[in-house]
Amino acid sequence: MSLGKIKPTDLAILGGPVAFSAPLPVGQLNFPEWQRFEEAMRGIFARRDYTDHGPLAQQFEAKLAEFLHVKHVVCVANATIGLMAAAVALGLRGKVILPAFTFIASAQSLTWAGISPVFCDVDPHTHQMDPAQAALLMNKDISAIMGVHLWGNPCFPDEFRELARDHNVPLYFDAAHAFGCTAGSKPVGNFGELEVFSFHATKILNAAEGGCVCTNDDGLAERLRTIACIDSTERIDIPLAGNGRMSEAQAALGLLSLEDYPKVQQRNRDYHEAYRRVLGGFPGLRIQSPPSGEMSNYQYVVMEISADEFGLDRDTLWSILHAENVISRRYFSPGIHRSYYYRDNYPEFVNSLPVTDRLCESVMQLPSGQDMDLEKISRVCELIWFVHRNAKALKPIARRPIR
Amino acid sequence: MSLGKIKPTDLAILGGPVAFSAPLPVGQLNFPEWQRFEEAMRGIFARRDYTDHGPLAQQFEAKLAEFLHVKHVVCVANATIGLMAAAVALGLRGKVILPAFTFIASAQSLTWAGISPVFCDVDPHTHQMDPAQAALLMNKDISAIMGVHLWGNPCFPDEFRELARDHNVPLYFDAAHAFGCTAGSKPVGNFGELEVFSFHATKILNAAEGGCVCTNDDGLAERLRTIACIDSTERIDIPLAGNGRMSEAQAALGLLSLEDYPKVQQRNRDYHEAYRRVLGGFPGLRIQSPPSGEMSNYQYVVMEISADEFGLDRDTLWSILHAENVISRRYFSPGIHRSYYYRDNYPEFVNSLPVTDRLCESVMQLPSGQDMDLEKISRVCELIWFVHRNAKALKPIARRPIR
Repeated sequence: MSLGKIKPTDLAILGGPVAFSAPLPVGQLNFPEWQRFEEAMRGIFARRDYTDHGPLAQQFEAKLAEFLHVKHVVCVANATIGLMAAAVALGLRGKVILPAFTFIASAQSLTWAGISPVFCDVDPHTHQMDPAQAALLMNKDISAIMGVHLWGNPCFPDEFRELARDHNVPLYFDAAHAFGCTAGSKPVGNFGELEVFSFHATKILNAAEGGCVCTNDDGLAERLRTIACIDSTERIDIPLAGNGRMSEAQAALGLLSLEDYPKVQQRNRDYHEAYRRVLGGFPGLRIQSPPSGEMSNYQYVVMEISADEFGLDRDTLWSILHAENVISRRYFSPGIHRSYYYRDNYPEFVNSLPVTDRLCESVMQLPSGQDMDLEKISRVCELIWFVHRNAKALKPIARRPIR
Repeated sequence: MSLGKIKPTDLAILGGPVAFSAPLPVGQLNFPEWQRFEEAMRGIFARRDYTDHGPLAQQFEAKLAEFLHVKHVVCVANATIGLMAAAVALGLRGKVILPAFTFIASAQSLTWAGISPVFCDVDPHTHQMDPAQAALLMNKDISAIMGVHLWGNPCFPDEFRELARDHNVPLYFDAAHAFGCTAGSKPVGNFGELEVFSFHATKILNAAEGGCVCTNDDGLAERLRTIACIDSTERIDIPLAGNGRMSEAQAALGLLSLEDYPKVQQRNRDYHEAYRRVLGGFPGLRIQSPPSGEMSNYQYVVMEISADEFGLDRDTLWSILHAENVISRRYFSPGIHRSYYYRDNYPEFVNSLPVTDRLCESVMQLPSGQDMDLEKISRVCELIWFVHRNAKALKPIARRPIR
């Protein structure tokens, strides 16, 4: 099925027909067949064990530990709560280094714990936090380094381990994007003091939402478990507890999703490859790839747009695609350092992250996941090619306000 | 069916047969029939809208607002997160007055927000925080008063409103126990700046776990919504956000539970009455009742034990009942002021709450909820009477260590 657009006015943004009848989402949205979920839920109903770290949450933790080759897995309601618990479990104080090119929860978890963020710029090629830049930011007020494995690719774990060791501070990772990925053939989940995964429906492993904290440290695991789950007044011997329990229904979905992981990973890889093969040949476009030899979940198709070469800037392309029901995303725009709260309270970082600023304006994620197929991907690529070929005529759109 | 215990050694704790073959829990555990839940879950599956404030969460909020006659309802993953969001939304700082005779999350929500608790003693008759004592604790460092409506009964809302107004500080309530209750015929949910309910499975309204924050203030509602649910970097204009979203599955259960509320409230009332009628006549026992003329959910059957009159102390009775599978609870033991963290960091309160200390040693909750029936209640009462009659012979048990 061809795109059927011949002249610029055939684009939906200029009044033409919409290319896709239903929105194409970026999120993975991997859901099992109803029958499998029904069976799990009937079990929960029979046991009436809906929450409070029930049998499915325990089983999910055991299977995750096996899958990730990690000693301890603590399931939580969502990754934000996992990061909040991590900051408290690690006893952080003062300042923590992290990138601003990440989801705002990475920084908010520190703010909840009363810690000031120190935003570090990222590597222009991999988009990962830059260890050389981080080294320049180290000082006696820094109590930890939070790496973020962006786009399912590892965030220089060896370099950061050395930096953290040199300065005698803990290193931990926001691994929300990186379930099933490796660095040096070692599974993410085993780096630093601990790592936090997300199981939001948009991620490859889906527990509707949810997450887990992984660690190989027994004491840290015990603290995380107590912090993430208020149990009673009697057992509280840590400073701060909260309710971050994963429900049995979340665990049920997570377990089914983990069963499906191999085939979903393969599908993501096929889709990623299909995009990369075509778009990689277009002028001004670059698709992020995992480092050679590493496992990736391929859950994000991340495209960097060079406006000069492509002919239009990222925001204009984004508007055009949205009008066609291609619901591409602009992660992360703005960077955390330019969001209201951090801009106002930490103005020293507003103009200190040139690579982050450039990426915030040039990066886009394309639809992938359960709702896509190779034919739709082919049509999305065709649409992007059509936009490129008509870039000159479409320039006036760039002046329109973005919705 | 009679209890079948004749002599003290017939008690399970002394080797006799266990009175109840399955444990009798204190929690409400009100679950709908599977068919009703299946229908709701199939809808969620069809829409694939599992979280992110989907249609069921919106519908649940609307129905709660109608039920409670309150303007804004913000659903959250659990009440602890609701209280954390409340502290941030109210912009609290410094110190906040609250009782120590409450679940530890009341205080932990303040600790997460960097606020010091000022523990206030409670009224010996109602167990509610005492406005006269609170008045003595007021000073310029106090930025708010957190009332707690204990056992589904109101916590002197008029007196605290006056106190808060006199000192020009906000008043808000942990209403985890008080869904469906009234004070002066006004529904709880409408007092102070905001109120936080719990929908944990142990409560009358069951969303597996979950909760909501209610307010009649538009600005506060908007802030609560932003704080409780990270949406994007773009909309964050408040200092602190987190992920406290209620899932669609939680909302589905909550909606069904709200439909069942009238009949469950009636059942709880019948059970409460059955306990009170019998136990109220026993020496040394007192069952808490709602103030006359007010609506209550009757979800807790709270018994105060006077050891001298009853013949045995609360902990001994508790051990004897547990051995018989009567899983009564000792809320709240210890009080928050004596839990590790608060005892060590706020030692000034350890010996300042005589009424709280006494209640922590003399109060017990008896089984109620979906698993109970009038016949079981009658046998629990018979068992307690049997213990009382044999109190003298059972005294040696009191010296055993409590498990």
